[in-house]
Amino acid sequence: MTSNPSNVMALTSNTSNKKETVAIFGTGDFGRALAYKMIQSGYAVVFGSRQAQISSLIPKGAEVLSHTEAAQKAAIIIIAIPRQHYNFLLPLAEVLHGKVLVDVSNNLKLNQYPQSNAEYLAELIPGAKVVKAFNTVSAWALQSGTLDASRQVFVCGDDKKAKQMVMDIVRALGLTPLDQGSLLAAQEIENYPLQLFPMWKFPILLSLGLTAFFFFYCLIRDVIYPYVNEKKDVSFFIAISIANRICPTMALILLALVYLPGVLAAIIQLYRGTKYSRFPDWLDKWMLCRKQLGLVALAFAFLHVLYTLIIPIRSYVRWRINSRVISQVNPLDNTSAWLSDSYLALGILGFFLFVLLGITSLPSVSNSVNWREFRFVQSKLGYLTLILCTAHTLVYGGKWFLYASSYRWCLPSVYMLSLIVPCIVLVVKFVLVFPCLDKPLTRIRQGWERNPQYSEHIPHIQLYLEGEQKT
Amino acid sequence: MTSNPSNVMALTSNTSNKKETVAIFGTGDFGRALAYKMIQSGYAVVFGSRQAQISSLIPKGAEVLSHTEAAQKAAIIIIAIPRQHYNFLLPLAEVLHGKVLVDVSNNLKLNQYPQSNAEYLAELIPGAKVVKAFNTVSAWALQSGTLDASRQVFVCGDDKKAKQMVMDIVRALGLTPLDQGSLLAAQEIENYPLQLFPMWKFPILLSLGLTAFFFFYCLIRDVIYPYVNEKKDVSFFIAISIANRICPTMALILLALVYLPGVLAAIIQLYRGTKYSRFPDWLDKWMLCRKQLGLVALAFAFLHVLYTLIIPIRSYVRWRINSRVISQVNPLDNTSAWLSDSYLALGILGFFLFVLLGITSLPSVSNSVNWREFRFVQSKLGYLTLILCTAHTLVYGGKWFLYASSYRWCLPSVYMLSLIVPCIVLVVKFVLVFPCLDKPLTRIRQGWERNPQYSEHIPHIQLYLEGEQKT
Amino acid sequence: MTSNPSNVMALTSNTSNKKETVAIFGTGDFGRALAYKMIQSGYAVVFGSRQAQISSLIPKGAEVLSHTEAAQKAAIIIIAIPRQHYNFLLPLAEVLHGKVLVDVSNNLKLNQYPQSNAEYLAELIPGAKVVKAFNTVSAWALQSGTLDASRQVFVCGDDKKAKQMVMDIVRALGLTPLDQGSLLAAQEIENYPLQLFPMWKFPILLSLGLTAFFFFYCLIRDVIYPYVNEKKDVSFFIAISIANRICPTMALILLALVYLPGVLAAIIQLYRGTKYSRFPDWLDKWMLCRKQLGLVALAFAFLHVLYTLIIPIRSYVRWRINSRVISQVNPLDNTSAWLSDSYLALGILGFFLFVLLGITSLPSVSNSVNWREFRFVQSKLGYLTLILCTAHTLVYGGKWFLYASSYRWCLPSVYMLSLIVPCIVLVVKFVLVFPCLDKPLTRIRQGWERNPQYSEHIPHIQLYLEGEQKT
Repeated sequence: MTSNPSNVMALTSNTSNKKETVAIFGTGDFGRALAYKMIQSGYAVVFGSRQAQISSLIPKGAEVLSHTEAAQKAAIIIIAIPRQHYNFLLPLAEVLHGKVLVDVSNNLKLNQYPQSNAEYLAELIPGAKVVKAFNTVSAWALQSGTLDASRQVFVCGDDKKAKQMVMDIVRALGLTPLDQGSLLAAQEIENYPLQLFPMWKFPILLSLGLTAFFFFYCLIRDVIYPYVNEKKDVSFFIAISIANRICPTMALILLALVYLPGVLAAIIQLYRGTKYSRFPDWLDKWMLCRKQLGLVALAFAFLHVLYTLIIPIRSYVRWRINSRVISQVNPLDNTSAWLSDSYLALGILGFFLFVLLGITSLPSVSNSVNWREFRFVQSKLGYLTLILCTAHTLVYGGKWFLYASSYRWCLPSVYMLSLIVPCIVLVVKFVLVFPCLDKPLTRIRQGWERNPQYSEHIPHIQLYLEGEQKT
Repeated sequence: MTSNPSNVMALTSNTSNKKETVAIFGTGDFGRALAYKMIQSGYAVVFGSRQAQISSLIPKGAEVLSHTEAAQKAAIIIIAIPRQHYNFLLPLAEVLHGKVLVDVSNNLKLNQYPQSNAEYLAELIPGAKVVKAFNTVSAWALQSGTLDASRQVFVCGDDKKAKQMVMDIVRALGLTPLDQGSLLAAQEIENYPLQLFPMWKFPILLSLGLTAFFFFYCLIRDVIYPYVNEKKDVSFFIAISIANRICPTMALILLALVYLPGVLAAIIQLYRGTKYSRFPDWLDKWMLCRKQLGLVALAFAFLHVLYTLIIPIRSYVRWRINSRVISQVNPLDNTSAWLSDSYLALGILGFFLFVLLGITSLPSVSNSVNWREFRFVQSKLGYLTLILCTAHTLVYGGKWFLYASSYRWCLPSVYMLSLIVPCIVLVVKFVLVFPCLDKPLTRIRQGWERNPQYSEHIPHIQLYLEGEQKT
Repeated sequence: MTSNPSNVMALTSNTSNKKETVAIFGTGDFGRALAYKMIQSGYAVVFGSRQAQISSLIPKGAEVLSHTEAAQKAAIIIIAIPRQHYNFLLPLAEVLHGKVLVDVSNNLKLNQYPQSNAEYLAELIPGAKVVKAFNTVSAWALQSGTLDASRQVFVCGDDKKAKQMVMDIVRALGLTPLDQGSLLAAQEIENYPLQLFPMWKFPILLSLGLTAFFFFYCLIRDVIYPYVNEKKDVSFFIAISIANRICPTMALILLALVYLPGVLAAIIQLYRGTKYSRFPDWLDKWMLCRKQLGLVALAFAFLHVLYTLIIPIRSYVRWRINSRVISQVNPLDNTSAWLSDSYLALGILGFFLFVLLGITSLPSVSNSVNWREFRFVQSKLGYLTLILCTAHTLVYGGKWFLYASSYRWCLPSVYMLSLIVPCIVLVVKFVLVFPCLDKPLTRIRQGWERNPQYSEHIPHIQLYLEGEQKT
């Protein structure tokens, strides 16, 4: 940023209006798309190509030259050709010396080559400054201008100035550069566009597994049992009744699993007496996917709400109401009215808080709150949600625990199973809140160590948990 | 970015603390608001004004000088006066030579003048470097600090350094500059704040038209027909029953219209044997508003869910249930129980996926996924949604196709009409998935051409469709 | 940004590869986390520490030196130690002269010290250039890389170059620097992470107060009155019936309170005949929390929808339906069918628009619309929502106003109370829309003044209200 008028005057020389020239090697879709966008943003673009004649698809305003000529004209050369053709650059090594080479390539598979494309390029042309960039952007997005997916461009490279020059171009194209450090990060950056929700893999596999288990469990208890014992065909229960038994169960268990690792970590810290000691790997991974677990739980809760609300429209329910109506009309039972209304009210409030948690985990919302607010919502409101949902389930169940009919073929009903994890989490958390445990835990989290010899070197220091305090 | 301490030392000279001075011509709301914000961000501000005395509204800390004096003091001059008064700058041409003039003006109508205000200014003062900026920001937003609407400041200009200086100011004010290229973009930037959801115009007009058509169609079939034939007044059907017939119909048709252009484009590409040939204009436009179409469809689906869920509360429904109850109680029909539960379950799952699609189209969510993930959600999950919703409608309808009563006055029921487009899309897509068609299509999308002579120059190359591959 | 190749060549000198060195004083959690992230982003880090031996937790690649040695090595020194130990820097004053000191500290309470930590540091070491930064970032976020909460780093400082250098580091770490001006802003920046939803305090307290009032009001009318008069125990009404009476009431009143200040401001402007005159403070504050009021109203509306939709599942309702069924079946009353369906339809449409308003207030959505679109949604659609919701309530109530039974113990029913504010707002707004009032109001908002002597100096000029026009 220039800070005095005299400096500004210097800029008014006639060089300032000269456009910066960028060379692009390769006239494929991506090279052309990038050229099109760069010309729009005020750069001069020269293509380096073997044949100068295939110019009908080249964006208007771009020049097509031989590779050598193009490289001589520009300080930055974008290599928009596949990795397998990189060795054609070898004869150009001299002219490329000192130039910034931008590797934009992607692979077709995760870790396709032992060495990243950018590192391979740097090895081929040691005199050039290789920067990895633009591989996360799609040719279509560049041209249509409708950047629906990521505007983020991960940039890495060993030469800081070269990286800065590329990041300036990224910014000029209206994209957001993200500096990922040295060229060692290239492998990771090249893998990024090939990933399909990596953080979601565990939560989704877990919930698929649990859903399958509970489905067969319910099938046996609610469809096969009555068929075997009473010759009653209620197979249509599969569509809604069983789904609506699985959804709340999954939602409650997954929500409890969001808070279980925090409780486990607190126990480990209390036991070890220090926070400077690594958690086991599984606990680390579990903690990092808590947000995803919570959102899957919210999805199940949402389905549970929908399944519940359409109950009165179901023809089975209408038939049952009608047939029951005729048979008898009992006087209103005040207790059952209380129970029915309470569990519904608890469920509504729990779901409401759950939706609030979901909204605050939207990137743009969580980005506009400070850490204290984020922790308040995710920890305080999160536990309140868990308490409300557990209470909702408990009140719904009511006295069923005592009835023998709840244990068909010795299988307790699903909703009893669903209460195990949440109750454990809540009980342990309740115990941890007592001052005799809370005080040492807070001290440990502020850096105090009971047995300093326990601590080990932690490259990626764990400072988890809501209690964390800075300086 | 400075990279060595010695360089840093140079900056410690006493000039570095001197504030940069910006001049503002015009003391209207916007000029004052900008001055207020700039002073807050550490700039020195001088106003250029005809009368030096109207200083009571001027933000504290700003100087008011004559235009000439103000222009001499600063390298950047913000022209915060209406276009019709620009010619008062003519006598100042000499002092403005080499300065950066920032045009912040807006018009009252789209394309009010044949030439954009910024280009007009550049023509008036050819010696100055004109930059267009800040026109998208509101004076109120600048002052209140609550930037609820866009933080984006579109910047364009022919001089790169001048543009960079203005973008530095934009960043210093906490706003996001977006480089739009040369001054030719000024017209578009000036039109931007006057637009009212331009991308939504077509989807909303289309859905209004279709809604009106289906409304009158239903009115004839469901209200006028029974009145004429059976003298039954069911005009109250308009409020909910008919609305709840239109909403799902619209949702399904619009959702199918989201996927129809992709299917059409695939057919065109297969027929032409190349992707390097422009699609017809209507197809281009249709493709660019698919997201909006999908969101309007989601809105109708949401209304359909609400309308359906309140059914049991309606007094008409309660009355019908009551009156039917007395008359007869049939034994539970297992098939109808299955049908009723399946279509509800299909609807719930379809709506759930639809909501997921809607969430991923939120800017901050779509911005944090990579292209592969975005395509997976919008294409795979999108088609699954369409399949589920179509199945929901088909199962709901069931055997009605066969009943004569479904054809009042030869008009088929609305829900039959609603199935036409989705079924066509699904059938064609199903055909396109077969290897004999999928293989050539994939090759075409990777750049292969059956008849290379077909391809023409495409300034804005079309690379649509999910199959698109880079490099 | 470098603009000519010759300039680029200059950068290829061997200095460009030298890493920039940053010193960190303090080896606590935050210092180490910052060092870890900086090393990742390509900086060289030296720790300044009293003891050189506590290096087991120090991130790999960082050096640990004495404070003096570390300070000599770097141009930027991050002070990651608590404020109470700042005076240990006094002996280092000479070596710190001309250096950039980055204050990253936070306090435990709002306004804990009369002077901000950064200003205190600047006073201690007058020769150094103090910059406040990084205090909003958590150590955990830096290390885990999952920046769920704010990526924003507020930066302030009196020296522009020093600030720029720190902002470059912030950007290199993948965070977003926000320039907050001079060091005077440090107090505010230090208070920021200690705040807990400051903008939400008033709306939430207001709604808690009103909710409590309406709860006791309903308790008296709907539970105590029947108990006293008819000895009927309907205490279970508390769980759902009363909640579902409070929620819509609160939603409607809060929504009206969103639009009331705009109407009041218009009246004040009309009365004073100028917009250059400050509104009373309470009106200013009220206006700034309209968004929050609206979102709380949406939350109540959402709860109201949930409470309403589960009505048919409630055992009380089922019992009532059953018992009524037996007793009598009336013929369908067309008028009541119309009324029931209309109020449901109005409610659905009102809620739908309300949800739309909520979605457009998500930061990422509101950030991608221009001001005209934002005003259209928040003002036009907002009023439409208010009209629909008020009509929903009016139609629901219908003829109840006339029934004596609506006035138990002379207390009108809650829903009558809920209509007072919305009706006032709508009536006044309706009056203001008449040309005889709208024309002068528009002129006033464009800067016209009836009695210029009224206007006073307004440091934070008020330009509220949707009618606002720019230059």
